[in-house]
Amino acid sequence: MLDRFKVAPADQVRVSEKALRETVAAIFAKLGLTAEDAALGANVLVMTDLRGVDSHGVSNMLRTYVEGYRKGQLNPRPDWRVVRESPATATIDGDGGLGIILGPKAMRKAIEKARLVGVGIVTMYNGRHLGAVGHHAMLAAREDMIGMCMTATQPSVVPTFGAQARFGTNPISIAAPAKIHPPALFDAATCSIANNKVRLAARLGSNLLPGWVTDLEGNPIMNETPPRKRGEYFLLPLGATREMGSHKGYGLAMMVEVLSSMLSGVLPFGMDRSSGNKHYFAAYNIAAFTDVEKFKENMDRMLQWLRETKPAPGHERVLYPGLLEYEEEEERRAHGIPLHREVVQWFDQITSEFGIPPLDR
Amino acid sequence: MLDRFKVAPADQVRVSEKALRETVAAIFAKLGLTAEDAALGANVLVMTDLRGVDSHGVSNMLRTYVEGYRKGQLNPRPDWRVVRESPATATIDGDGGLGIILGPKAMRKAIEKARLVGVGIVTMYNGRHLGAVGHHAMLAAREDMIGMCMTATQPSVVPTFGAQARFGTNPISIAAPAKIHPPALFDAATCSIANNKVRLAARLGSNLLPGWVTDLEGNPIMNETPPRKRGEYFLLPLGATREMGSHKGYGLAMMVEVLSSMLSGVLPFGMDRSSGNKHYFAAYNIAAFTDVEKFKENMDRMLQWLRETKPAPGHERVLYPGLLEYEEEEERRAHGIPLHREVVQWFDQITSEFGIPPLDR
Repeated sequence: MLDRFKVAPADQVRVSEKALRETVAAIFAKLGLTAEDAALGANVLVMTDLRGVDSHGVSNMLRTYVEGYRKGQLNPRPDWRVVRESPATATIDGDGGLGIILGPKAMRKAIEKARLVGVGIVTMYNGRHLGAVGHHAMLAAREDMIGMCMTATQPSVVPTFGAQARFGTNPISIAAPAKIHPPALFDAATCSIANNKVRLAARLGSNLLPGWVTDLEGNPIMNETPPRKRGEYFLLPLGATREMGSHKGYGLAMMVEVLSSMLSGVLPFGMDRSSGNKHYFAAYNIAAFTDVEKFKENMDRMLQWLRETKPAPGHERVLYPGLLEYEEEEERRAHGIPLHREVVQWFDQITSEFGIPPLDR
Repeated sequence: MLDRFKVAPADQVRVSEKALRETVAAIFAKLGLTAEDAALGANVLVMTDLRGVDSHGVSNMLRTYVEGYRKGQLNPRPDWRVVRESPATATIDGDGGLGIILGPKAMRKAIEKARLVGVGIVTMYNGRHLGAVGHHAMLAAREDMIGMCMTATQPSVVPTFGAQARFGTNPISIAAPAKIHPPALFDAATCSIANNKVRLAARLGSNLLPGWVTDLEGNPIMNETPPRKRGEYFLLPLGATREMGSHKGYGLAMMVEVLSSMLSGVLPFGMDRSSGNKHYFAAYNIAAFTDVEKFKENMDRMLQWLRETKPAPGHERVLYPGLLEYEEEEERRAHGIPLHREVVQWFDQITSEFGIPPLDR
């Protein structure tokens, strides 16, 4: 995460993983979820915060979820079901259930299929927000598989040359296990910057950088510009301009749409809100392709080699996807998760309102 | 393709698809390939040129292939074989065979598996250049499937903050069929610009644009700069700088490496040249997930909706991935493929040397 998105030390309140998990689960339970689903949802959010992905953790997303359940946009007891199935595939109707809770269940199904026939692919429609897609991909990596997860969301990104939002931030993730090194975990939106980060920038008072957004006419803004409110900008595809490859970010967003929405048998959110968010889960059973031990040793060697890359002037080291988040997780497990004091105030308000114990800190 | 990469009208010689196909097949046959493989390879190259992807067609690649066969780096009669297999997967040892010829065979295997169990995933190591990966993805789209293809190539791109090339241009492609509209076909390198385009720029005398390359210290060059020779630059990941998302391009390149190299049981080219290029082929049987007719109708509706996006100032229209290439194909089928006269001279030289009829024009 860029430094500009980190909570300033003066605004930080550190809370423990355990305390946050308990409070979030209690909030979910009050909203009508089963105890099991409440714990599952709390785990996904807290793991996301532990990994330092604040944009998708409790700070930004939990209040949106609470609002969603209260307004009936989220179904606390979804009757999700498989509508079509084959040995390697399943299509699921998510019945309006929150993605952070149905995601792990769908990935479990993909893993089971991969164990039997080598690969499992599961798509879901009538879904809701999936959280950090990398979390679900990691579930497969823990089973000696490669996990992938994508989600097609509400329109916020212009196509190259376009002046209307068409696709969502449509993130892609992949996780692969190693033996000694922390697993490789790539998780990123197919636009220059995720919408959540634009909201985070607004909260922190940080400027937007060149190549992140367009004005409302679709012109890419290629200089630094103050934070903008919802409805005052569109996001740019990864690559920013045609010359730097924005058609690639746009094409990757379409790829996510094809694998998530179209393969589920429905239209993109921007054409039909009623089909909700659409998700894609893949598990590749490494043993079906090659020797698992050899694979993990090769991963270690590759990740080491990436870390040993000579850095460019002004940079201390070269990372690999997932390394920084792993280091952040170690630090936050030891010293607590730094929440903005404004977020802690929100917790105090909601726990008081729900009549549950306050967030311990 | 950016205008700067098109052959200037004064330098163009138009040749027919048929003539080009015959001459290329004759050249391949002279190099020791079977008649069937020679025709297959010629078809892939000519289809690529027809679609206007000059960077991966006969102009740039054929002479490299000829040199490769002559130097023994390419095996004209590869004894390729499946080394591990499961209902949904296969791992292939490509035995040094050219990817443009083995690619269609690997994709056929993925398609067969997808027909049986819903999805087919095939990886290949000991491979050589795969050509335009989108060509192989399209083979699945013609069978009412979604096709995907990726390839991990020799190092040319720096990781974010890095001063050494680690991954290749590692392109990703996906193809999906529609009913009325030309199919969606996305095919792009995970760097700002493919190496072939830098060579094409050198041939055409075009400048390199901001965000395409680094200097040899790894500093991104963010202003327009004259063409550079091999060894005078590294490519930048898609996103160009960390602030604009180069860690996403870097992560996508790693994803390609994980799915192609690691899943084949070998290391990236930059760590072990002996394993060659590594490829990934995927076929998703649409009928296993949803109704095929509905899928194609939905694709038509989505592609139409993308085309109807209001354009930003200064732009005539919004495209979808694959549309421009389809239009180019129609035009080139009717009026011939525009080759640079320098390329035609090369054909005259090689056909004379091989004692085969000259390229008809």
